[in-house]
Amino acid sequence: MWRHQVTAGLVLFLAFWSVAGGGKLLVVPQDGSHWLSMRMVLEKLWEKGHEIVAVVPDAALLLKSPQSFTIKTYSVPYTQEFVDKYYQEMGEKSFELTLTALLSNISQLTSLFFSACRHLLYDQELMRYLQDSKFDAIMMDPVLPCGPILAEYLSLPTVYFMRGLPCTLDYKVAQCPSPVSYVPRTFSSTSDHMTFPERVKNLLIGLSEPALCYLFYTEYRNLASEFLQRDVTMQELFSKASVMLMRYDFVFEYPRPIMPNMVYVGGINCVQKKPLSEEFEAIVNASGEHGIVVFSLGSMVSEIPMKKAMEIADALGTVPQTVLWRYTGPTPPNLPQNVKLVKWLPQNDLLAHPKTRAFITHGGSHGIYEGICNAVPMVLMPLFGDQMDNAKRVESRGAGLTLNILEMTSQDISTALRTVINDKTYKENIQRLSDLHLDRPIHPLDLAVHWVEFVMRHKGAPHLRPAAHDLNWVQYHSLDVLAFLLFVLLLSLFISFKCCLCCCRRFCGKKGRTKKAAKSKTH
Amino acid sequence: MWRHQVTAGLVLFLAFWSVAGGGKLLVVPQDGSHWLSMRMVLEKLWEKGHEIVAVVPDAALLLKSPQSFTIKTYSVPYTQEFVDKYYQEMGEKSFELTLTALLSNISQLTSLFFSACRHLLYDQELMRYLQDSKFDAIMMDPVLPCGPILAEYLSLPTVYFMRGLPCTLDYKVAQCPSPVSYVPRTFSSTSDHMTFPERVKNLLIGLSEPALCYLFYTEYRNLASEFLQRDVTMQELFSKASVMLMRYDFVFEYPRPIMPNMVYVGGINCVQKKPLSEEFEAIVNASGEHGIVVFSLGSMVSEIPMKKAMEIADALGTVPQTVLWRYTGPTPPNLPQNVKLVKWLPQNDLLAHPKTRAFITHGGSHGIYEGICNAVPMVLMPLFGDQMDNAKRVESRGAGLTLNILEMTSQDISTALRTVINDKTYKENIQRLSDLHLDRPIHPLDLAVHWVEFVMRHKGAPHLRPAAHDLNWVQYHSLDVLAFLLFVLLLSLFISFKCCLCCCRRFCGKKGRTKKAAKSKTH
Repeated sequence: MWRHQVTAGLVLFLAFWSVAGGGKLLVVPQDGSHWLSMRMVLEKLWEKGHEIVAVVPDAALLLKSPQSFTIKTYSVPYTQEFVDKYYQEMGEKSFELTLTALLSNISQLTSLFFSACRHLLYDQELMRYLQDSKFDAIMMDPVLPCGPILAEYLSLPTVYFMRGLPCTLDYKVAQCPSPVSYVPRTFSSTSDHMTFPERVKNLLIGLSEPALCYLFYTEYRNLASEFLQRDVTMQELFSKASVMLMRYDFVFEYPRPIMPNMVYVGGINCVQKKPLSEEFEAIVNASGEHGIVVFSLGSMVSEIPMKKAMEIADALGTVPQTVLWRYTGPTPPNLPQNVKLVKWLPQNDLLAHPKTRAFITHGGSHGIYEGICNAVPMVLMPLFGDQMDNAKRVESRGAGLTLNILEMTSQDISTALRTVINDKTYKENIQRLSDLHLDRPIHPLDLAVHWVEFVMRHKGAPHLRPAAHDLNWVQYHSLDVLAFLLFVLLLSLFISFKCCLCCCRRFCGKKGRTKKAAKSKTH
Repeated sequence: MWRHQVTAGLVLFLAFWSVAGGGKLLVVPQDGSHWLSMRMVLEKLWEKGHEIVAVVPDAALLLKSPQSFTIKTYSVPYTQEFVDKYYQEMGEKSFELTLTALLSNISQLTSLFFSACRHLLYDQELMRYLQDSKFDAIMMDPVLPCGPILAEYLSLPTVYFMRGLPCTLDYKVAQCPSPVSYVPRTFSSTSDHMTFPERVKNLLIGLSEPALCYLFYTEYRNLASEFLQRDVTMQELFSKASVMLMRYDFVFEYPRPIMPNMVYVGGINCVQKKPLSEEFEAIVNASGEHGIVVFSLGSMVSEIPMKKAMEIADALGTVPQTVLWRYTGPTPPNLPQNVKLVKWLPQNDLLAHPKTRAFITHGGSHGIYEGICNAVPMVLMPLFGDQMDNAKRVESRGAGLTLNILEMTSQDISTALRTVINDKTYKENIQRLSDLHLDRPIHPLDLAVHWVEFVMRHKGAPHLRPAAHDLNWVQYHSLDVLAFLLFVLLLSLFISFKCCLCCCRRFCGKKGRTKKAAKSKTH
């Protein structure tokens, strides 16, 4: 499709770039499921001949997977065993969460990543290497701001690859308007069509966001100021991104204003279907006319408390479908015959199989996009983070049903599962979303690769940066102009009033004098 | 690049669509230069097997060009001779404009188009044919709202192909925020970095836009209400567009918020270069090391007053380049030897020639994009419409110089032309813009074709429609929510105050009584 007319200069420029063996990209990834889709973009870039260097901690959950590009590790003050145990317990905790447990969980994870970040930045040998390496650009998942600090330190043009920042900071730093009246805030669990009370809630969440952001990023702000040896704000650091690759798509997100440097690449993880292995092919074929249900709580959660597992097992026994359940914990004693426990499953390939009738998921964005790509109705069991909001979006489009993991009974699970399978509207709705989602001019993976290369080629994308970045809050909202116009208006009114008063006085005075004169004449 | 995973359903759907011979598209074009790039999209759609029917008046300037698709004409109350004479005089008038002449000119053109629109809508036979034809979608240039009225009448999903609407109505109807602090309004002639007085001007223009729009569209609003037999507003009609293909690009436009259904296809007219004809090739080759200058005031203006023509001829004689001037008027007696007058020139092919040093243009968007695509510095002589704003944009990027056609002297023209040719920064700046503009993941023509087909396939694009359309002004700005919160705040303050008062009174009263009791005891 690169059919456009390329001028002589550009041809030479691209030719030189190609001869030089492509660009050199530094990558600061985020551990966990976020890494999975970022890796796809990096592998594609590597195939195209770019040199890629990723900096990762020496103890991590998913970052250690085999890669085709250079990995530079830095030491962290915790062990691999600790990380493994932490994530193993995460699933169990999610099903028993009280607010205190939730906060302690978030705080522990944040401390873990924060200490990793400090160790990265103060790894002097690694920093020297990075400074000497002359990268063309830096690509990162900025959900925690270690990457933006490093980008500022190395003065590199930046590409974000992300799915949102806490307290809607991603849109704020991009200077993107987000009217609270129809753009639901994170954790508001509302759709874009809100009732009055929902709009009140959304506005209150919106008002509280700056304070939340301030608190959330305090440690990083201090670290950044200390490391860069000047006072910096998170807003300043984050606002420097040249291009933001966002794992969003409007079949799933609510339509809203966007900015020129925001590139939506939702569904980037829906890769071409590979044939199933013999083991899974046999299970699927044996399911008969009823087909199968795919059940997974994501790459980070594979064990849950036995009580919940038994309740779920009970419910799964009530449907005629074969259920493939990714589960690594001890087998529930009441496991029905139609449920097969597996340690791992090829989720996208199974969802793409025509015999798949439903998908039970925690509502992580990767899973939801795979459900949409393959048009499989969903039962959602959101655990943490953005998953409640994701589930709400799928439900509001009539493509799935959401369960509350803390309160759901066996009956609830069974009813929800049977509804999405048997009520044709769920299949019709997800099929419609799927058709819209897949009908696009270019695959999100190619789009992402293009924009990373663009930033590397042009050392940024200054033509996409709005002038709003150079205005302060008062100027942005034209408050100074309005104050000036109000002043001019009041001044003109005052002068007019004074003039009128003056004229009146003179006129009345004259009249008075005339009257007086007339009076004196009559006397 | 159509590499994405297509589900079985979508494959069947697309296969059926393809077997059925593609879709059926109704087109309501706008006469003049706007038609040139729209025709390219239509020809590409026609090549892809879609049936295309365009409704055009039987007297027009450019709409009569040879086409590969079906043309349905409707009669209008003016002749072809009148149209030809009108456009012939347009150039002359542009150079002699007073405000009265300008207003009379606009008013005459508007009346012309308005009467054509009325004749289209009340052509009963044509309307019956259109109703019976079962189109999949309607595509139009909505600069004048005849198309939107017809779309509403026929209840067809709509694609706009446009370059802006009067009074920024395009962004308003799309519910797209346009902060006046950095988004310059039409006719403001400011860049996105404004001084305080410029921001005052921009805000005042912004405030006047609703009234201007109301006045501008009065006739059409009445016609629409009469024809559709119910009260309609322009806002309502325009807001129904499924997709808006906008001839914008951020190398030329200032970065600003956009909406999901806005697709930027600026530069769509920069097609692949064809070899020059022998006649032009000979002229270019004879130009020697100095190369050539291309001079055209667009497809609609080819004659100018003799006095201006002589001044321009004088100026062109001061540069060593050969100047190719598209000009159909009488030859100026002082025409220098290095200037060749031609009735028509292959503008894009000439601009793409490596010997081209500068482009003298009226600043129409088509010409400017051809200048950008081919990296040719420009001298801009804006005549009317958006051309002043276009010229300002090119100048603000250091890629050209603007002249005031009413005031420019021969010396001004000569200085400007020599500056853009000899000052290397102009070439460097336009080359940088060109590199950024051409480095895109998909050609704008393919993008436009994709979105027209998308709307035809899915009968619209409801997933791109923001919920803001369902809110009124008060709700959109959350004024009701703010009023409610203010009420709650005041009420709580009032209750707290009353409680405090009550407590104080009781406390003071008790104290008083105690004191009294104590006093009476001492007595």
